[in-house]
Amino acid sequence: MSFLRMQETAHDQLIEHLLDVRTFSETITNSLEREDFVIQSMPDVSPAKWHLAHTTWFFETFVLEPSVPDYQLFHPQFRFLFNSYYNAVGDRHPRAHRGMLSRPTIDEVRKYRAYVDHALAKLNVEQLSDEVRSVIEIGIHHEQQHQELMLTDIKHVLNINPLRPAYRSDLTTPEPSEPQALSWSHFDSGIHQVGHAGDNFHFDNEAPRHEVLLRDFQLANRLTSNQEYLEFIEDRGYQRPELWLSEGWDAVQQLGWTCPLYWERVNDEWQTFTLAGMRDLHLQEPVTHVSFFEADAFARWKGCRLPTEFEWEHVAQIYQPGPQSNFVEEDLLHPRSAPTPDDQKSPAQLYGDAWEWTASPYIAYPGYHPPDGAIGEYNGKFMSSQWVLRGGSCVTSKSHIRPTYRNFFHPEKRWQFTGIRLAE
Amino acid sequence: MSFLRMQETAHDQLIEHLLDVRTFSETITNSLEREDFVIQSMPDVSPAKWHLAHTTWFFETFVLEPSVPDYQLFHPQFRFLFNSYYNAVGDRHPRAHRGMLSRPTIDEVRKYRAYVDHALAKLNVEQLSDEVRSVIEIGIHHEQQHQELMLTDIKHVLNINPLRPAYRSDLTTPEPSEPQALSWSHFDSGIHQVGHAGDNFHFDNEAPRHEVLLRDFQLANRLTSNQEYLEFIEDRGYQRPELWLSEGWDAVQQLGWTCPLYWERVNDEWQTFTLAGMRDLHLQEPVTHVSFFEADAFARWKGCRLPTEFEWEHVAQIYQPGPQSNFVEEDLLHPRSAPTPDDQKSPAQLYGDAWEWTASPYIAYPGYHPPDGAIGEYNGKFMSSQWVLRGGSCVTSKSHIRPTYRNFFHPEKRWQFTGIRLAE
Amino acid sequence: MSFLRMQETAHDQLIEHLLDVRTFSETITNSLEREDFVIQSMPDVSPAKWHLAHTTWFFETFVLEPSVPDYQLFHPQFRFLFNSYYNAVGDRHPRAHRGMLSRPTIDEVRKYRAYVDHALAKLNVEQLSDEVRSVIEIGIHHEQQHQELMLTDIKHVLNINPLRPAYRSDLTTPEPSEPQALSWSHFDSGIHQVGHAGDNFHFDNEAPRHEVLLRDFQLANRLTSNQEYLEFIEDRGYQRPELWLSEGWDAVQQLGWTCPLYWERVNDEWQTFTLAGMRDLHLQEPVTHVSFFEADAFARWKGCRLPTEFEWEHVAQIYQPGPQSNFVEEDLLHPRSAPTPDDQKSPAQLYGDAWEWTASPYIAYPGYHPPDGAIGEYNGKFMSSQWVLRGGSCVTSKSHIRPTYRNFFHPEKRWQFTGIRLAE
Amino acid sequence: MSFLRMQETAHDQLIEHLLDVRTFSETITNSLEREDFVIQSMPDVSPAKWHLAHTTWFFETFVLEPSVPDYQLFHPQFRFLFNSYYNAVGDRHPRAHRGMLSRPTIDEVRKYRAYVDHALAKLNVEQLSDEVRSVIEIGIHHEQQHQELMLTDIKHVLNINPLRPAYRSDLTTPEPSEPQALSWSHFDSGIHQVGHAGDNFHFDNEAPRHEVLLRDFQLANRLTSNQEYLEFIEDRGYQRPELWLSEGWDAVQQLGWTCPLYWERVNDEWQTFTLAGMRDLHLQEPVTHVSFFEADAFARWKGCRLPTEFEWEHVAQIYQPGPQSNFVEEDLLHPRSAPTPDDQKSPAQLYGDAWEWTASPYIAYPGYHPPDGAIGEYNGKFMSSQWVLRGGSCVTSKSHIRPTYRNFFHPEKRWQFTGIRLAE
Repeated sequence: MSFLRMQETAHDQLIEHLLDVRTFSETITNSLEREDFVIQSMPDVSPAKWHLAHTTWFFETFVLEPSVPDYQLFHPQFRFLFNSYYNAVGDRHPRAHRGMLSRPTIDEVRKYRAYVDHALAKLNVEQLSDEVRSVIEIGIHHEQQHQELMLTDIKHVLNINPLRPAYRSDLTTPEPSEPQALSWSHFDSGIHQVGHAGDNFHFDNEAPRHEVLLRDFQLANRLTSNQEYLEFIEDRGYQRPELWLSEGWDAVQQLGWTCPLYWERVNDEWQTFTLAGMRDLHLQEPVTHVSFFEADAFARWKGCRLPTEFEWEHVAQIYQPGPQSNFVEEDLLHPRSAPTPDDQKSPAQLYGDAWEWTASPYIAYPGYHPPDGAIGEYNGKFMSSQWVLRGGSCVTSKSHIRPTYRNFFHPEKRWQFTGIRLAE
Repeated sequence: MSFLRMQETAHDQLIEHLLDVRTFSETITNSLEREDFVIQSMPDVSPAKWHLAHTTWFFETFVLEPSVPDYQLFHPQFRFLFNSYYNAVGDRHPRAHRGMLSRPTIDEVRKYRAYVDHALAKLNVEQLSDEVRSVIEIGIHHEQQHQELMLTDIKHVLNINPLRPAYRSDLTTPEPSEPQALSWSHFDSGIHQVGHAGDNFHFDNEAPRHEVLLRDFQLANRLTSNQEYLEFIEDRGYQRPELWLSEGWDAVQQLGWTCPLYWERVNDEWQTFTLAGMRDLHLQEPVTHVSFFEADAFARWKGCRLPTEFEWEHVAQIYQPGPQSNFVEEDLLHPRSAPTPDDQKSPAQLYGDAWEWTASPYIAYPGYHPPDGAIGEYNGKFMSSQWVLRGGSCVTSKSHIRPTYRNFFHPEKRWQFTGIRLAE
Repeated sequence: MSFLRMQETAHDQLIEHLLDVRTFSETITNSLEREDFVIQSMPDVSPAKWHLAHTTWFFETFVLEPSVPDYQLFHPQFRFLFNSYYNAVGDRHPRAHRGMLSRPTIDEVRKYRAYVDHALAKLNVEQLSDEVRSVIEIGIHHEQQHQELMLTDIKHVLNINPLRPAYRSDLTTPEPSEPQALSWSHFDSGIHQVGHAGDNFHFDNEAPRHEVLLRDFQLANRLTSNQEYLEFIEDRGYQRPELWLSEGWDAVQQLGWTCPLYWERVNDEWQTFTLAGMRDLHLQEPVTHVSFFEADAFARWKGCRLPTEFEWEHVAQIYQPGPQSNFVEEDLLHPRSAPTPDDQKSPAQLYGDAWEWTASPYIAYPGYHPPDGAIGEYNGKFMSSQWVLRGGSCVTSKSHIRPTYRNFFHPEKRWQFTGIRLAE
Repeated sequence: MSFLRMQETAHDQLIEHLLDVRTFSETITNSLEREDFVIQSMPDVSPAKWHLAHTTWFFETFVLEPSVPDYQLFHPQFRFLFNSYYNAVGDRHPRAHRGMLSRPTIDEVRKYRAYVDHALAKLNVEQLSDEVRSVIEIGIHHEQQHQELMLTDIKHVLNINPLRPAYRSDLTTPEPSEPQALSWSHFDSGIHQVGHAGDNFHFDNEAPRHEVLLRDFQLANRLTSNQEYLEFIEDRGYQRPELWLSEGWDAVQQLGWTCPLYWERVNDEWQTFTLAGMRDLHLQEPVTHVSFFEADAFARWKGCRLPTEFEWEHVAQIYQPGPQSNFVEEDLLHPRSAPTPDDQKSPAQLYGDAWEWTASPYIAYPGYHPPDGAIGEYNGKFMSSQWVLRGGSCVTSKSHIRPTYRNFFHPEKRWQFTGIRLAE
């Protein structure tokens, strides 16, 4: 598993960091009713209970079983129930049936977590192999990915309920401020390095670092706003096939799209469902919960295009995440309008707020090889039919993201916090 | 609603009886984990939470709203969420999405029940119209039907879980005794009265009482046993299309049937899932969880047939339910082997144990008219493509059943306690 | 095969009659283009080519192979390709793929027919067993059934084509005459004989003859007219769930029914597609191409009901088919308005014009047994979920029909010439 | 439509060339039975009749209607029936129903072709606008694409028929010769030009010409052979999930793939269906009718990868198609084993034989813009979820292909002549 390098994290802090991350998973679910843990509102969604168990299964299977002599599994059938997609680990419970399981209960899952955390806490990091330490790092980032999924999944679960309950009633909604006018940052052509370099943690799909040839391009100074997207809607954007990719137009027709996910027309006003419940749509905020197809059609309507993932990464290597980025730590759990930038040249909102759809299909970098074994199924096998997103969102952990980070989803997916940044 | 006559129940006992029945619904769910209340394991199944709420909605909608001045609904959207199929009451939540609702929680549903029960307890029966009293009677029987469904639905929910949890660990399984040998009771041809007569409660579909012409027939002295059904399996019953109706053979092929629902071959032994969990199959017990198609194919293989509903009813009018009948009050929640009959001429197990598929499609009696209004949607509109079952099962309330009672299901359904009695 | 009795047909006329019927199959397809023979416009429909081959396969498989020593099959794979549903004969080509076969071409199918007809013509009837003679009789009636299907199937095939080509341009459309006013014939209660008696040919499902108990009833003097059905539509019949069986209402919603099949609203006028092409709807003609669900809803709207199959048969035994009945021999291929009856007491249109949906599910008569062998799969195995129709239609052969004849279809089917006669 | 440049074709030869190409479409269908023209064996396939009509509709709609004053449409509804996917031209007949149309007959379609060809022959090229001349060029290439589709579609249509008829019985099968041993050609890294340059005809998706950065790579000297692919099968390639992309593994499971399309195991020997009918599989021939997923899994199993489209194009710009390339003009209609190369450095079979799956998703070149109007729907709107193939096949016209030509299909498609060339 040579592609994985250790973070600078001193060895003795690894387990502490791990347990902090593990705790945050439980924090996220504190406001849920027990019944909320069970629902799978569509095949993409997993019940919160499942996320809590699956991330635990990950450490049990890939860390404790190989490292702890005489380790006793918490429950022999959990190997089957909570495997997500690792063929190398054996058969698994069908994904679409995750919402059919009332047992184990959330109480039992919490016992499972405590049991595994207890064993993890007892690990002596110095005695672990580099490989196992690497897997712990992966497991931390894996758990952070599922934390983001828990938040987007529960949003879907609560929205499908006609009662539209809020996930948390104590969330604050910042007073929306008028975003800066749309402007463009120019970047020159040239051969640039992209992909991960250095010893920090990264996923296999961010490597190898390699050269790419970029042409002159311009990048928008901020995310597209709800106001701008509404103009697209009002200009009959969803009724004009010439603006859409063919598969996108099919999605519009078959799924009946007329606006972003979670927008609703109530008494002639646009409202939107947030993790704080239903509220008026703030036109100043970035548009989110749009598919790649909608992002692409919007860009075409604007006479622009989406940036490639390497254009984005080239810019992101210049402007690292700042302290004001809207990640999950801000505890807004919703994108906010673009702040006035400190530095006029820096595009706002590159990190956090909303994942940015790029014009790049998700494929391997030149010379890419997945690691051996089950961990090799983590990223590489999904390299068809998906598109790269960059930058993280308002429900991503700050320590999870970096300029080289590649997220990927199918082009019709809308339940993540996904938005639009234009390029030319 | 002239078709509904009052039970002998004195007026002042009606509400008491109602509240007793309501309480039993909650008793049934005492052993459930909170997560168990949420699951819809297939479209036929409803979550236990939904059953508890829907039966409450029934009284709120059809009794309290029309009868109690200034009655305040517990929650305005419950009218939409917990309507099952009454078009006359308005739109309703899609049946197949009942398992998508985490809210209201079971705690809220219990508050809803308490709220409605409180209002029901305050009713002055003497001041109610005959019609409202009739609807209360219907509501009692309606609740009993949903009690049976809760037990069969939760059995399905727990069985679909790879952990196969038991519904109750305290259930007793009677030592199986060798059933009596199969023998036949003979009945003479003639014109007989069938259908409900008298003032007792009955459903609209049991009326009008009318004459039918029966031919000589013989009825088996007991239900078909697992042993007998196993012989059918071992004689390749599920591989021989000539034994099956065409739609039944399609079901065998498409659904992959090779044995009754809940039978499993484990280490070369037949086991079965019961409400007490997995256990060995007792060959002496009646076969249950078979579809009409399987009952029909088995009868054909035996060189016999299923009785018509009127043959069954003619016999049942002679032999009323006895004290030993295995209804839900016995708290076995599983059919038991046929007891030695007190009276050699009486067929055993006519009532309780397992619903008996008949050879009669479910259609209207001559002169049948459903009552006016939403209650008219209770039975009449289902009179196509279903078959009549008679006699109740081990999860039916004793006070719910009578010789004229007509249950009905589609011919491929297997999740109820449905069994076979042969005729010739 | 004791249930099959020989027609009076002298033995030496049997083959002559057979070949006449066979010739009529080809007459029916004379007006088709070669491409028309290939299309399967929905799973219920079979290509005309398939009908011509399947009826030939029937004689080859059930008559020639068992009776002619050293009979050489025309083509070994036709056994597989042209078996409809006889499990006992072996595997078969999937029904839904019948429209995927360009080969054999219609020329080859015609050669197949000639080859088999030649062998049939050489049969010495005197030397055949009773059983084989019976199968020839069945084969004649089987071919007549497929002649009717060819006409209804090709109507569907041509209608699905946006060009709406006519099947035949030379068909005459009688000038519609005002039908008699709706009136009722009264029939007294009593025990009556139904089912086939005597030595004439009949299908197994018409036997055994047996007694039924009928109550007083009245039967409408003619079929329901388009005018009457239009009043149902205009009274919002397709928008009122209380008029429909539950499965019927589902069909209305899911299939988008707003009028009978083949009706179309063109420039604010009702038109209808006939085998002569599109033309104005004649309000005086009987309504046809309605499902059981529509017939049932219409009757409920009228405050009437459909007759049972035994009420119909009781009447039909009194009034046999007359010379003026509109069968396929009339060569109208469309129902015509009810003629003034010669005898005021005789209901018009009992035979021909349109099959009459009855209120009777299609089940076995008491004591029914299908014949042994593959022929036993002809009727008996379809005895679930279908409804009985009586009387034949404008595309039925006159020699095919009789008072005891039972046709059957699923309640949502509309592509046959199916109509409505009311009862009270 | 500035992206389209005229071929050197002198103006007065344009129409002559057009009519030659049009004639070849009819030549291709000469061996078909009339019934063969009707079948749509799966949604991807169109009936041959439809191809002949649609290519005619193309010229009528995009050339004759705009250019010929008072042009009379052959049939007003053909605009609807034979539009493939041009939203800008209006509604269209649903793609999946193309096999439901018996009319127009093939005779009528041939009259349609003659009518349009007659009008095309009368065009005065000098008086046409550049734009119309461009569309004629596109129409020629469009017709050639449909010629290839007719051959692959009819192969599918005939193969789905259990009789497995040959498309042509006069096709010659070259004696298979042992292919050269697998070897590698090396190419150096650098910045290279790709995409179309010059005045010759090309499609919009081949432009603009632009620079790409290539790394050192090696390309296999020939296509992968059946022999090599069989080793993959025998090494359990179809049973090992670790070799497959996740969506590819899903396809294996759901579609039951165990070998390339058209391979069949008959009496323990591998046979294959060709346009000449069923015959033994020749191990020396290139493997064909594999999906991208199979090509990708095979390459992974070999420890290699597929080339990118720009690696391929870089090589192809060096080695142009030679006289021995196996295009449709060779009239083999099947790939043949790799010939000994004249020049040891030239990879064999770069052109013709089988389309080569590349590792490149089908997306736009930098600066790409589709042309205005309906013609703009030709290529650009399909730029999601598909992969680029290069080089043409044994059923491609020689004049249709060039080094910059980009074909594209979804990764699970197998009915085209698609093969594998390895890279490292």
